[in-house]
Amino acid sequence: MNGAESLLTSLLHNDVDTCFANPGTSEMHFVAALDRVSGMRCVLGLFEGVVTGAADGYARMLDRPAVTLLHLGPGLANGLSNLHNAKRAQSPIVNVIGDHATFHRQLDAPLTSDIEGAARPFSHWVRTSASANALASDAAAAVAAARSAPGRISSLILPADAAWNEVSVAQSEVTSAALVSPPARPADVSIEAAAEILKSDRNAAVILAGYATREAPLEFAGMISAATGARLYSQTLTPRITRGAGRVAVERIPYPIDQAVALLKDVDNIILVGASAPVGFFAYPGKPGKLFQPGTRIHELVGVDGDIPYALEALADAVGAKKFTPARAELDLPARPTGSISPEKIGQLLAATLPTDAIVVDESITTGRSFLSATRSSHPHDWILPTGGSIGFALPVAAGAAIACADRKVVCLESDGSGMYMPQALWTHARESLNILTIVFANRKYQILRNEMHNVGATEIGPKASRLLDIDDPEIDWAHLAKSVGVDARRVDTMDTFSSALDAGFATQGPYLIEVAF
Amino acid sequence: MNGAESLLTSLLHNDVDTCFANPGTSEMHFVAALDRVSGMRCVLGLFEGVVTGAADGYARMLDRPAVTLLHLGPGLANGLSNLHNAKRAQSPIVNVIGDHATFHRQLDAPLTSDIEGAARPFSHWVRTSASANALASDAAAAVAAARSAPGRISSLILPADAAWNEVSVAQSEVTSAALVSPPARPADVSIEAAAEILKSDRNAAVILAGYATREAPLEFAGMISAATGARLYSQTLTPRITRGAGRVAVERIPYPIDQAVALLKDVDNIILVGASAPVGFFAYPGKPGKLFQPGTRIHELVGVDGDIPYALEALADAVGAKKFTPARAELDLPARPTGSISPEKIGQLLAATLPTDAIVVDESITTGRSFLSATRSSHPHDWILPTGGSIGFALPVAAGAAIACADRKVVCLESDGSGMYMPQALWTHARESLNILTIVFANRKYQILRNEMHNVGATEIGPKASRLLDIDDPEIDWAHLAKSVGVDARRVDTMDTFSSALDAGFATQGPYLIEVAF
Repeated sequence: MNGAESLLTSLLHNDVDTCFANPGTSEMHFVAALDRVSGMRCVLGLFEGVVTGAADGYARMLDRPAVTLLHLGPGLANGLSNLHNAKRAQSPIVNVIGDHATFHRQLDAPLTSDIEGAARPFSHWVRTSASANALASDAAAAVAAARSAPGRISSLILPADAAWNEVSVAQSEVTSAALVSPPARPADVSIEAAAEILKSDRNAAVILAGYATREAPLEFAGMISAATGARLYSQTLTPRITRGAGRVAVERIPYPIDQAVALLKDVDNIILVGASAPVGFFAYPGKPGKLFQPGTRIHELVGVDGDIPYALEALADAVGAKKFTPARAELDLPARPTGSISPEKIGQLLAATLPTDAIVVDESITTGRSFLSATRSSHPHDWILPTGGSIGFALPVAAGAAIACADRKVVCLESDGSGMYMPQALWTHARESLNILTIVFANRKYQILRNEMHNVGATEIGPKASRLLDIDDPEIDWAHLAKSVGVDARRVDTMDTFSSALDAGFATQGPYLIEVAF
Repeated sequence: MNGAESLLTSLLHNDVDTCFANPGTSEMHFVAALDRVSGMRCVLGLFEGVVTGAADGYARMLDRPAVTLLHLGPGLANGLSNLHNAKRAQSPIVNVIGDHATFHRQLDAPLTSDIEGAARPFSHWVRTSASANALASDAAAAVAAARSAPGRISSLILPADAAWNEVSVAQSEVTSAALVSPPARPADVSIEAAAEILKSDRNAAVILAGYATREAPLEFAGMISAATGARLYSQTLTPRITRGAGRVAVERIPYPIDQAVALLKDVDNIILVGASAPVGFFAYPGKPGKLFQPGTRIHELVGVDGDIPYALEALADAVGAKKFTPARAELDLPARPTGSISPEKIGQLLAATLPTDAIVVDESITTGRSFLSATRSSHPHDWILPTGGSIGFALPVAAGAAIACADRKVVCLESDGSGMYMPQALWTHARESLNILTIVFANRKYQILRNEMHNVGATEIGPKASRLLDIDDPEIDWAHLAKSVGVDARRVDTMDTFSSALDAGFATQGPYLIEVAF
């Protein structure tokens, strides 16, 4: 058994059975081992951001890590921006990054770089394997680190000779991941303090993040709200929200700073459940960085790495909420809008058509501001957002979500600006026949930046600035772009044609793309 | 004047007048300032790797830095792999990376990350500006660092409030870049030692890198070779080689390890001119890392940061070579091959058709192994290679080279695998009407990895490994992909249709793409 086989065996032993890969020469022994050690599903991405984004989507749906396979420092670098999102989403991921053979590094060959240095800002755990003998235990340690609450990024650097050398020590006792400590329960005093706040202030806000926005914890949050009047909020960007008919609805803290501040203006008490105290996405001159008022009291019920389901159930007990029925969204599908296209009508059409158990991956940015509220009473579904704010997120994450949940329809809401960061993901959609309906909202501009220019006080947009904010020259033909990499596609420019294209897309078992020109 | 205006003014004052940009909210004041401070040309890339790659291509042609504008840590991360190539090419680049406002960083908003940490492995110089008042001198320092020999990567982090705050101190005396020391001349003893070697060993090898592969230094190298019999080599990957008819030809050290070792097998003395001692690109089991024999003596005439033209001229003097006429390539254009397509015939067709002063950006990988030797006697041209070995290089670098040299035709030799790393660059080709003819060699596989599997001793390629090495399912339609982002294109599958498509491409004033299916 060589090192690569030992590494693969250890990963599989520790329940890591999916590999998103873009390999190079230094990873060839890992690649070769895939046919000798059975059980690892491999998915090729044509760009490393696709690989890491897919691992993020996979982790968000299954709450366990996939492994990525990346080529040296530059290959890792290409994957870092989606690792940023994954890190902020608390997604467990194990990166395996090939390096030169240990004895080759000192020669400073062209591809040599500081891989540990590049990995560190976007990882919680970084290790370079010393030898073939170390790989089984290193892999187990990487998995354990990724699985530690709430979910972390592990980066294991694999020297080429560690992969190709034979393993010379017995491995059987070192390959199991160290037992991961369960997430810590908050102290009783923290629960009691939250209960006191909720009992005395019917206007308190509960901000839910991390695991708190999944179906079961949301039930307890709904009971608490029903019993105490507390308002339930999610952060602007949440890793995954379980929502739609039958689920307890939460209101999203809006991205625009003025709207967010207005929402929390009269809140005297905020209880954080896996969330941080709400802050603005960006700083704006003359506007606050914190979204809450100076006098607002903040109480952390439980951190993102704590036992969130326990904390919510305990709090429900403490406020006597378990006898209350949470307010669940009831199925209420709007009529399909017709005529010319507007963001609001798009939200209504999505609300009317989202299939049961759809997984929505949302990078619709400015077009999609109304989508969450519009789909509150749609068929039950999951909603995924770009937690770290890094662009180029949706197409890769959709791939990983579709691989994690092959029996569900993934709806990828993409923008033309954002989509151009990682369009290569569409090829993987086609290669793996992934059940993904991608909708590209093509407004031919970075509309969010036009808004932000105004928000930061740069109110005059001259011709040079405009050229950096508009992407209409040349116009990107998304339908043809998709077809060029194997994804069937169609462009629509009215709500009626959009509506029929959606029917076609939802009926397709495999990838499909709709370009919405408006 | 606000900080952004001060920064722009300082950059322009220091001869940085071209900006490759993919901005976000934190860079909006920089963007707004572009219309108030005149003189900066701005080019939008739809992905940050396009931005940094373009800056590399620009620097290789003009030997001076452009500025990139990148958005926070993830935006920088997307640009790092092409910065790796640029760093290895000794290309001067000034990166400006927007960050949150100084007072916002501590709030740990979603896009917050360790920007300095991400920049450091791929930069020579990293600084975070403290305030608007510091920006003029910080920009001057960044330019000075980028311009210091032989050319370096500067990364200046620009907090949003430093950009939008008013400058409150007089700036006039701090905006000039510190005088950059000229590259150091090698000691006389080093030149004398090299001369002694060349006089006593007619079989010595001179390896030329950095500035040594430009026309004027090559003339001296050619005289030295004519006088002493020394063989002239370039490294496998060279930032830019001035070559073709009328130029002194150098032989490239081949990428395949066995060929490279064979080439240098009987060499007893190697003289390095801006080069490192030759090493293999990768390590292979049972093969040497160093390309030269254990007994070979290595003498560094001058380092890559030294005065290479001086060193070569001084060496020519020391060996009495100035009375010798260098062997220059003579114009000798082959006939255009016909019939089915092969890599060798492609090389011949390129040799026959390359226009005078073409700039060839070469990421043709396995297809292009014969191209350099084939084009040795073509019309004079420059040849650019991916110095750091990072993939996704050619389309962005071609954009920068075309912007640097608007009166020259850029010929971008791309592979289908490599091209998919940064296809967004084609949009910039179209947006700026760049005079770039892109040729994509579509063999539908990562052929180099199929070769490398064998080289690293993984001789059996099973079905799972094959799925990671072949990209034929689905087939990528490069002609349609190019058209979808505004670049006219055509697919060819015989040498005859390729030949006529080349004529069309060379006749086009603007971007054109030929997909060569074989």
